[in-house]
Order: sequence, then structure tokens, then C-alpha cells
Amino acid sequence: MLVDAILTDAPKGGVIFSKIEVREEDFPVTLKPIYTGICGTDRGIVAGSLSFAYNPHGYNRLVLGHESLCRVVSAEPNNYGIKAGDLVIPMVRRPGTCLNCLAGRSDNCSDGNKHEAGITGMHGFMRSQFGDYPEYLIKVPEMAAAKIAVLTEPAKNVEKAMEVVDIISRRSIFTDNQGSFEGKAALVIGTGSEGFLYAMKCRDYGFRTIVTNRHSIDETKVGILSRIGAEFYDYTHDTGSEKQGFDLVIDTSGDPATVIRFLRKINNNGILLLFGTNGKAPGALMNGDDIDLIVERNITVAGSVDGSRIHYERGLQDLIKWNAIYGGAAERLITGYASPGSTGIFTAKPTGEIKTVISWE
Amino acid sequence: MLVDAILTDAPKGGVIFSKIEVREEDFPVTLKPIYTGICGTDRGIVAGSLSFAYNPHGYNRLVLGHESLCRVVSAEPNNYGIKAGDLVIPMVRRPGTCLNCLAGRSDNCSDGNKHEAGITGMHGFMRSQFGDYPEYLIKVPEMAAAKIAVLTEPAKNVEKAMEVVDIISRRSIFTDNQGSFEGKAALVIGTGSEGFLYAMKCRDYGFRTIVTNRHSIDETKVGILSRIGAEFYDYTHDTGSEKQGFDLVIDTSGDPATVIRFLRKINNNGILLLFGTNGKAPGALMNGDDIDLIVERNITVAGSVDGSRIHYERGLQDLIKWNAIYGGAAERLITGYASPGSTGIFTAKPTGEIKTVISWE
Amino acid sequence: MLVDAILTDAPKGGVIFSKIEVREEDFPVTLKPIYTGICGTDRGIVAGSLSFAYNPHGYNRLVLGHESLCRVVSAEPNNYGIKAGDLVIPMVRRPGTCLNCLAGRSDNCSDGNKHEAGITGMHGFMRSQFGDYPEYLIKVPEMAAAKIAVLTEPAKNVEKAMEVVDIISRRSIFTDNQGSFEGKAALVIGTGSEGFLYAMKCRDYGFRTIVTNRHSIDETKVGILSRIGAEFYDYTHDTGSEKQGFDLVIDTSGDPATVIRFLRKINNNGILLLFGTNGKAPGALMNGDDIDLIVERNITVAGSVDGSRIHYERGLQDLIKWNAIYGGAAERLITGYASPGSTGIFTAKPTGEIKTVISWE
Amino acid sequence: MLVDAILTDAPKGGVIFSKIEVREEDFPVTLKPIYTGICGTDRGIVAGSLSFAYNPHGYNRLVLGHESLCRVVSAEPNNYGIKAGDLVIPMVRRPGTCLNCLAGRSDNCSDGNKHEAGITGMHGFMRSQFGDYPEYLIKVPEMAAAKIAVLTEPAKNVEKAMEVVDIISRRSIFTDNQGSFEGKAALVIGTGSEGFLYAMKCRDYGFRTIVTNRHSIDETKVGILSRIGAEFYDYTHDTGSEKQGFDLVIDTSGDPATVIRFLRKINNNGILLLFGTNGKAPGALMNGDDIDLIVERNITVAGSVDGSRIHYERGLQDLIKWNAIYGGAAERLITGYASPGSTGIFTAKPTGEIKTVISWE
Repeated sequence: MLVDAILTDAPKGGVIFSKIEVREEDFPVTLKPIYTGICGTDRGIVAGSLSFAYNPHGYNRLVLGHESLCRVVSAEPNNYGIKAGDLVIPMVRRPGTCLNCLAGRSDNCSDGNKHEAGITGMHGFMRSQFGDYPEYLIKVPEMAAAKIAVLTEPAKNVEKAMEVVDIISRRSIFTDNQGSFEGKAALVIGTGSEGFLYAMKCRDYGFRTIVTNRHSIDETKVGILSRIGAEFYDYTHDTGSEKQGFDLVIDTSGDPATVIRFLRKINNNGILLLFGTNGKAPGALMNGDDIDLIVERNITVAGSVDGSRIHYERGLQDLIKWNAIYGGAAERLITGYASPGSTGIFTAKPTGEIKTVISWE
Repeated sequence: MLVDAILTDAPKGGVIFSKIEVREEDFPVTLKPIYTGICGTDRGIVAGSLSFAYNPHGYNRLVLGHESLCRVVSAEPNNYGIKAGDLVIPMVRRPGTCLNCLAGRSDNCSDGNKHEAGITGMHGFMRSQFGDYPEYLIKVPEMAAAKIAVLTEPAKNVEKAMEVVDIISRRSIFTDNQGSFEGKAALVIGTGSEGFLYAMKCRDYGFRTIVTNRHSIDETKVGILSRIGAEFYDYTHDTGSEKQGFDLVIDTSGDPATVIRFLRKINNNGILLLFGTNGKAPGALMNGDDIDLIVERNITVAGSVDGSRIHYERGLQDLIKWNAIYGGAAERLITGYASPGSTGIFTAKPTGEIKTVISWE
Repeated sequence: MLVDAILTDAPKGGVIFSKIEVREEDFPVTLKPIYTGICGTDRGIVAGSLSFAYNPHGYNRLVLGHESLCRVVSAEPNNYGIKAGDLVIPMVRRPGTCLNCLAGRSDNCSDGNKHEAGITGMHGFMRSQFGDYPEYLIKVPEMAAAKIAVLTEPAKNVEKAMEVVDIISRRSIFTDNQGSFEGKAALVIGTGSEGFLYAMKCRDYGFRTIVTNRHSIDETKVGILSRIGAEFYDYTHDTGSEKQGFDLVIDTSGDPATVIRFLRKINNNGILLLFGTNGKAPGALMNGDDIDLIVERNITVAGSVDGSRIHYERGLQDLIKWNAIYGGAAERLITGYASPGSTGIFTAKPTGEIKTVISWE
Repeated sequence: MLVDAILTDAPKGGVIFSKIEVREEDFPVTLKPIYTGICGTDRGIVAGSLSFAYNPHGYNRLVLGHESLCRVVSAEPNNYGIKAGDLVIPMVRRPGTCLNCLAGRSDNCSDGNKHEAGITGMHGFMRSQFGDYPEYLIKVPEMAAAKIAVLTEPAKNVEKAMEVVDIISRRSIFTDNQGSFEGKAALVIGTGSEGFLYAMKCRDYGFRTIVTNRHSIDETKVGILSRIGAEFYDYTHDTGSEKQGFDLVIDTSGDPATVIRFLRKINNNGILLLFGTNGKAPGALMNGDDIDLIVERNITVAGSVDGSRIHYERGLQDLIKWNAIYGGAAERLITGYASPGSTGIFTAKPTGEIKTVISWE
């Protein structure tokens, strides 16, 4: 099938909006994108800085895109009740043959033999049409505005990460003496779209929630944090001396120096959740005292990547909820729309961007 | 009460076997030590290198000792059924007022307001007689040779740490495709007494168990590992190229460079359990790629310190079991006995020591 | 303080709207009810059929009411940020001194020494004014219509029960082979307000959700189930032969015969969650084969009562979410409003009632 | 292969020691039994009272036996290190294709498509020689006397059941205020071999452990309970008024009246573990008040059957431990030995039997 697609050549990079002939399997569902989101991974692939990205077998191009909202063009009858006209979100990661993949948890793939649409060996969703299987499609209720549903893919990462936090926090009594989190503090490092999504989830839990970054933030971001009920401080210019003692620190930066800086501010029984990655970030010294602190304070550090079907479902539900509870905070994360041909947004991040979305209709 | 005791002046250090007048509360149980074990913490306090150690309030000396086996001299009737003549092990850490302490889990103390016998503000067990409360005494079955019971305190650390591993490993399917650990590999860093105890526990789980260190080990240690069914390699002189891919790495060194070296060999969904501490160890670089690896592989790093009453109980039971299953391997960890007056063992570690024990009878 | 209140004499029963002099402690927060909901427990107390209900110490009357939405009249400064004008929901159960109560989980009280507003030894919320402590008040975001917030107390039961399901289901792989619940079936017994709330929660999880009862339901109820995406069948008139094999059965009836009937339709590794109570219901035979089935199928039966602070918080958030996702389904559960003086609703259930609410403003 | 075997015709029953021609697959390991244990299931099959038992496909006879200790006659090289001369215990249950079976947990089989040696469609271990796969064989350390290893199969049931207890008890704080189980009470119903094994496990946990039955027990049984440190009472002749309030009740009887009797004595947050089955036992009334009690007390009732590879491993380790800690209590459970030809023991239980073992060498 000849389609219009946003293409790169992984891992070399580059970006072009052009036609490509894709040999499709005989997929039971056919889809067209409505919106596709752009994230740091897309820009990293285009910049040629993500060495793990690669073209699908037999292609010298990779269709980009792993965040999307699509319309079902046609569908064979299926157990998931997906039919023509439905709005759906296709999942990014596709299972291999390990035990976690067999159990539907390719996000916890044990051996790395999985694929990721638009990233590793599988064409992404930034193309005029494509096919898929119903078990990899998440149905969007019509009344949930398509607008926020495109954020489901980034939101599913938050849902999986917090599932990990729920599990590992069981090693001690992690709640306060009312059995809730209102007496506990969470710090979110970073103010990209993932940072905001993590902040909303932390507020749901009841954590006093502090967002930090190495620079100040604009009015839009300040406004969203205010709706959420989260605080902000710029750690380059503010000692944050009032903001010691975190029970949960969530990093979206991937920067070793920043991670170690805030590791040192974690309370006993606290958790450091690592989500951000930045392989090219400079190293930072981990001292004997840092290991001491992790041990003596019973701290847990957990990496978390991706999410499975259930996390997409919960992410979508949470987006709708956050929009309702936090005064439209979820939809305010989308700071701009572009056309498929405006490939410049892959190389130059728009000012004030939280999430830029490509509109396909 | 005037007692003979092994004394230091924390945190300055030094060691002397001498008389000291201890003002005792009106304790319901009176004890005499039979054996007391020496560990790196004792030597660190004597060397004056552990800044967190301090004398009890109103004393300018600290009685050392937190590993012990004692005989009950007298006891008021109590719920724990402890009576004169019983063998018991006193617990090291005593609770503060936080929620974890209230729940009997001072090992997970949330605010640090606990005390540790022979370490922080509370006299230890290296004295001819002392009092205690029954809720801090673990009863030793007579048939379990007193010989190995003195290892209960170090063993309780292993039990608590593996409880943590059990909990955090639930974030994915951590067992092999027979639901057991025989298809999984554990690495234990360090060949002190804790290293051997962790190795025995790992063998119980069924892990292929590899012990490593930066130098070769003597015949005694080789013999114990052989009884356990564990492998050894000296990572300074052996690339360990056949020993990649660990699902569980347990560190007893506290050395950042070593920890980071083996972090990089952990499988997807793997766990790094940090137990050893060495605040004075030189720092090591943690790179962006290391954070990447923790994230992309869903790795969990957990610090674990101390243990609670239930871990002492399980530790003692496991010591008896290990001695039976692994051909006397547990008792072989005790490599030497000394008298209370031989304080030289606090400053010079005997050659080939795994555990040196002071005999008080 | 002299207040207008809906009164009973527990456990004898009866109901009257009248004045009562209440000796109040020096509470930091003063409240006025906006809405109070009526449930089966209220009616049971009024009918004199709940032997466990009792008047507060020193009173020969009990103010009814445990489901409410209140306006804060005045508040001393507090850690929960509650101030005059806020909308809040007061918690029903108040802690005793057991370990679970100390940890803020009086819903799991170990020794029964807790109190419940409007039920056991503590005046309820159906009075013109009363005082409370901020740690027992759940703040309601203004934008969340007060209308549905009155359902928070019943919703918190659902949140706690599903927390229990989440924990006990970890004994095996409980999800389907996509790691979600779409391939699994839940049955909810009963079509009162709790039944609908459980059904919405089950739909959130992704379960194919079937609601059943021993009689047909009216158009309003059919409409709500349709919005939720749940199925219904009347088990007296329908064999339900297409509806065998449940992975989760939730009972809100408390009727032994019904519970045992559906226990027999539970799949391997399935869960029977008992929530409803009806002490006067006739007994039913449990056979040797029923125990066999529980054992051979690894079935878990869990009773669940009440919920803690965090469940109120999640319940309120879910109500807002359900209203958004399921087309106003949450607010449709309120089928009628009454004035405080219309005490007839305590003795005669209005036709088609799901939830009747008393309006105090 | 023509072998000597103890045969029945399932589900009709009967027993004969005779030759049978078994068509074996090309198994990598060949085994000879040393000991095989007899349990109630074997006697039930012989009596023709277990309707679920059936002969293997293509046979009109079933070789009995699922509890055994075997010697390896020959073995191809394998990952489990099993070689000629080893002592091993073959597992009973063999996996189907459901997700739990794929994960090595056929004890939690989701769809019932598994087989059990000597019970359902697969020849058992009471034959002079047979073949198997290494992944279904548990290696026995030589030093662990073969004598107690034959109890591994019954012990694995206890290990799995207590794993279930560990998981479901996490729904509240289940330990006492020292974080241990010494302030908690366990009741074990039944004094067969499983009853004793459960009692030992409960003692390991630290529970005050009470064993009960509907008749008095002989000197041998009294002596074993004394070594374990467990109490006994005959509930037909003793009100057990001092023995109210259990936190854990374990039933090995499968009798509804007994189960309901003791359900009523369970504390808040308590657990009723159902292990015993007796499909022909008379039914008993479960009242509305019983459901009330399960709900109001947050009680959990869990059925538990079988165990997986890891439970066999832990069971064997525990048997060795129990023998060491509880003065040979484990080996005292074997109350008699018989020859393969003495098939009378399948129809008449020897007086004072706890476990009768058939000796094959």
C-alpha cells in the first residue's frame, strides 16, 4: 500500500513527509490517524542520536510516530468490539516470546525481543493509513474528546510507573498516619508533558506535589500547575530549602547529576522512580555516602519503561478525569497543532511547547 | 551495676576491656552473654571512622557489641515464655515512635529516632551482665547448637533483605518458566560472613549462585562455597565473561565502583540489593547510559538495613537448616574464638576470618 | 448546642425530626450539611433490626446519617487546608487504638473498638450543624458538582473492596493474556446504589460486567447500565446459561442462598467479594462439594467493609470520572430528594429508588 | 515396558499389585521408586469414591501413587544437573496450556487442562520403574535422609498454602505489634499428616498453634505436638472456651459443619485457609450472620490446592529443618512401612497411622 508518511532512516536520522510503499500483513483492522503527538524520542531519532532505533526488516526507511489517536476505517468482527468509525489508540510495543510478553506485559519484556512502532523495527503511526490487530487497539469513548485522547500513550507510562510504586512501596508502611498520602511529599523533576502527567497523578494520590526544573517556567505552565494544586521551584536559582524530604521522587530528565542531587533529599523508605532517559548526559559521581543513604534509609530506586494494555486504559480514563477535576488541565498540555508536512517541528521545538500534535484530518 | 565490659568512646574510638558502672532500668529479664560476634561495624567504631556512633546519654563510654547469644539469669513471668536458663538473642535496634516502629518494624524506622545497642546511644551486649525486655529477646531452641545461634543477628539482615526482594520482584514475572529460580542467576559481591549468608539464602531459593570478590579466597572459603553449591570468581583477575546476566545482584561491599560495575550486568526486571556500606569509599561515575539501563530494563535497586523480630526468628531457623542441608556450612563461618580481654581482634582482623566470636563463659 | 436533627433510639428504632441538645467537644471545624444520603443501614436502624447500633454514651437518642456532603462554616488553620466555605465529606468511622487504626486504617480495625457516625455510639450527620476534626474531612473540588459528591461515602466502600481484590488476586495470574481484564467476567449481585457503583468500577477495570438480581429492573436502571456498558439478567426468570464462568463475583445482597448459588459459577483463581450484609436472611446449605470447589479452583472469598481516607478520595475522583465517561451515569444514581422533615422515606422506600438524598439547604 | 505396579481402575476403584505394560515416551530420565506414601486420595480412588479420577488415555487401569522418593537409574545431560544415582521427587501435576501453567504454576491452572500422576489420566509412581522429564524432578541432597524426603509431596501443599496466606494477609496489618506472629493464634483442624505439617509451619511463623479434632489423639501424636510446641484439644469433648479468637484457621477436614463452626471463631482480618476436601460430607447451614461476620471482620477465605516446583523445594528444606528444630518431629510422621504387595493398607487404615509408606527396595 502506498501511503503518505513522515519518514526517517534509523538510526541515521533525518525527516521527510513523503510517500512510501508499505507491505502490510492481512490486518483485521484498518486505521487512519486523526492526531499524532511528537515527543523527545521522535526528535532524538530524527537527530540521529538514538542508536537503538532501526528500520523495519527489508526497509531503508522508518515511519515515525508512536503517540496517536486513530479512526477505524474498517474492522473484521473481533472480541474487543472494535468496529468502523470507532476512535482508537494503537499500542506502541508489540510482544516477543518471553514469559512477561506471553502474559500481555511486553512492557516488562524479559529478553528484549519486542518491537516498538516508530522506533525499533516496526513502522509507526504517522502515515495516512495502516493496519493493526484489535488486541493492540484501545477504544476511546466518543464523549471523551479526541483532543486529550492523543495523550494516552504518554499517560500510560505514568500509570505503569505508579503501579510499580504501589508494589515496591509495600516493603514498609508508606502512607501517613491517616492511611493516605497527604502527609507525604512527591517531587517531579522536569516540566515536559510527562512531568505534568506525573504531577497530576501524584495529586490524585494526595501527595503534596512539587515540580522542579533547572529554569523558570512560563505563564501557561504556571497556570496548569496552579489548577493541579502543585508547587514549582527552579532548582538552579532556588535552594529549595523549604522543600527537603521527599517520599517519592520521579525523574523525567535522565540526567545523572540531577538524579543524584535529589536522591540525597529522599526520606526513609522513600522511592526514586527513574523514567527519563538521556544516554548522552554527562556522568556524575555516586559516592560511598550515597550508597550508605540508600541502605540506611531503605530507599528503593526503580526504573520504569512503557506500559501495557491496562495502562493505556487507565491513562485514558485518568486524562478524562484530570480534565474534569483540574479545570481542563489535561487539554492545556497540548500547546500547538501542526500539519504532517511541517516537519520543521521535529528539529526545532516550538517555544513554550508542552505537547505538539500533528493533525491528519 | 558494676560490670566487666568491652568499651569504646564513640565516635572517637578506641577499645578497652574494663569495669563500668551501668545504671540499669528495672528490667524484667537479666542476661549473661555466652558468645558475642565481632563485625565490621564494631571495628569501624573502634577505629573512630563511624561518625554516626555515639555514647548513651549521660555516659562518656559505650559498651560495644550487637551480635550475641545469651543465657537468661532470671526473668519475671512474660508473654514470650522466657525463663531462667533459656538461651536468647537480644535484638539490636529499639523502636522510636514512628508508624513503622509502632508496628514492630523499627528496621523500617521512618524518622531515624531509634537506638542500636552497641552503636547509637545504647550500651551493647559485650558486658558480663545486663537487663532487657522479653519482646526484644529471641528464644533459641536448646537443640540448636549455641554455636551457630550467635550468627542470628547477621542472618536477620539477610532475611529482611530477601523479604524486600520478594516484594519488589512482584512488579513483573520474576521466576523462570517452571515458576522457580533455577533458571535465574544471583551474584553476591563480597566474601565476609554476610556474603556467605546471602549465598546460602540464594541457594535455598534455587538461584544459580555466584560469589565474587576483588581477590582470590582461601581453602576454607572455597570449601564452604562448595558445600553450598555456589560458584566463585575473582573479578580482578577473571573477566567473568561466562557470568553475565544476573537477575539478582547483592552487594555487601558498599563500594560505588563495584556496585556500578555489576549494575551493568543485570538482566531485564533484575534487582540490585544494596546491603554493604562504606561511606569512605571513593565515588564512581554514574553515566547517562546507566540510568538508561535502569529504566529500559525495568531494574529495581533497593537498599536494605537491619531486620525485625520475625527476621531474627527466620534467621535462626535458616542457620539450623543450612547447617543440616549444606554439610555444616553455617558453623564453618565461625573461624575463631577469643577471650573478652583479647581486644587486639578489634584492630587487627585475624587471617582467614569469616566470623570471630568472643567466648564469655 | 441545640440543633435540628433526624433522631432514632438505637437499637430500638423509630425516627423523628426534632431538636436535640448535643454537647460538642471543642472541634476545630464547624459544618452544616448540604445533602445527606439514606441507605439500608439507616432504614435498618429505624426499623430496630440492627442489634449492633447504639446511642452515644450519655444520650438516649442517636442522630442518624453517615452519608453526607457538608459546607464548612468555620475552621481553625489546619494541615489539610480546610477553610470556611469549603465543601467536605466527613468520614463515618473513627479509629480506636489497634495497630490498623493507628495506621489510619480503622476500616481494618483489629479489635472492633472504633465508632461509626450515625450507627454505633457517635452522632451522625443528619443535623443542622456539627463539629469535626480536619483529618476526618475530605475536601471536594468546587467544580465537582456537589450533586455527586454525596455519593462519596458509598463509593469509598467500592474503592476499598477493589483494593482488597487487587491484593488477593496476586496469588495467581489473574489478568488475561493481554495483561488486562477484557477477557475476564465480573458479576455484581444487586441493583441498589452500591451495585451500580461496583458495576462502574468493574467496567473501569475492563471486565465484561454482568449485573444480576432476582427481579427485573425499571427503565432508569436499564438506562444507567447501558451507559456503563454493563449487561443485566434477572436470575429468577433467566437461567443465565450464557453467563457461566465469573472471575469476580461481588455480592451486595448478603443472602446466603444467592451467594452460594453464584459461588458455584466462579472460575479457577476467581474471587468472591462479600460486601452486602443481611443478618436476618435465611441460611443456606454449604455442601462438601462447595468446599471442594473453593479448594480445587483456588478460589478466594473476601469480606470487605468500610474504607479509609484514601478510599473516600478515590471514590470522589471516580464519581467525577464516571459521570464524564459514562454519560452522567453517576448523577443518575440519585433518584430523589426529600426534606429533613419527610421522615417517611425511612420507613417506605420510594418506588424506583437507587439513592434518595435529603436536602438541607 | 512391563512393570510391577499397584493398579486401580479409575474411577471405579479396586486395587491390585500386578504387572502392566506401559507405553513410555522417550523420557530423558529413568527412575525407580524407593518409597511411596499413601494418602486419603489413594484410598478414595481405591474405594471408588473420587469421581474425578480417570485412567490414562488408552488404558483400562491407572497406576496409583503421587507421593514418592525415587532413585535415578539413568539420565541424559540436563539443565537441572540430574544424573544417575541421584535421589529425586517427581512432581504430581503436569501443566496444560493456560497462562498460569505456562508460567510454571500448574497448581494455579486456570482452565483445568492439567494432569495429575496417579489420579487424573496419568500413571502414578507406584511401579517398579518409569520415565520422566528433569523439569518435573526435585533433587534431594544426599544428607537429607531419604526417610523424610518422601513427605515432600504432602509438604509442598503447605508451602503453597502459606504463600497464599502471605499474599492475602497483606490486605491489612496482620502481624502483632512486634511485627511478628507470636501475639497471633493459628488453629489447624485435623490430625492427619497434612495437619501436622501445617502445625509445624505455623510454629515456624511464631503463631500460638492449636490443633483440633473431633476425637482424642494417641501418645505418638501427643508427643509430636509437644515437640512442635503446639497445643491440642478435642472439640467434641472440650468447649475450647480458652481457645477463641483465631487469626488463621487451616482446615484439612473438608467438612462444612466443622469449617463453619470455626469460621465463627475467627478474629478481625483473620484468614480461613481451606485445604481439605470431602465432597461427600454432609452440608451445613451458612447463615446471614455468617456472611455478616465475614464482611464486618474483613475475613478472607482461601481455597488452596497443590503446589509448584518451588513449593516442593521449600517443602523438602522445611522437612529437614523441622526434623532438626523439633526433635525429629518430621520423621515421626511416618508411622509404618509396607511392601508393595500389601495392598490391604489401601482399604484398611493402620491403627495410629499418620503416614504409611511403601518400601520398594
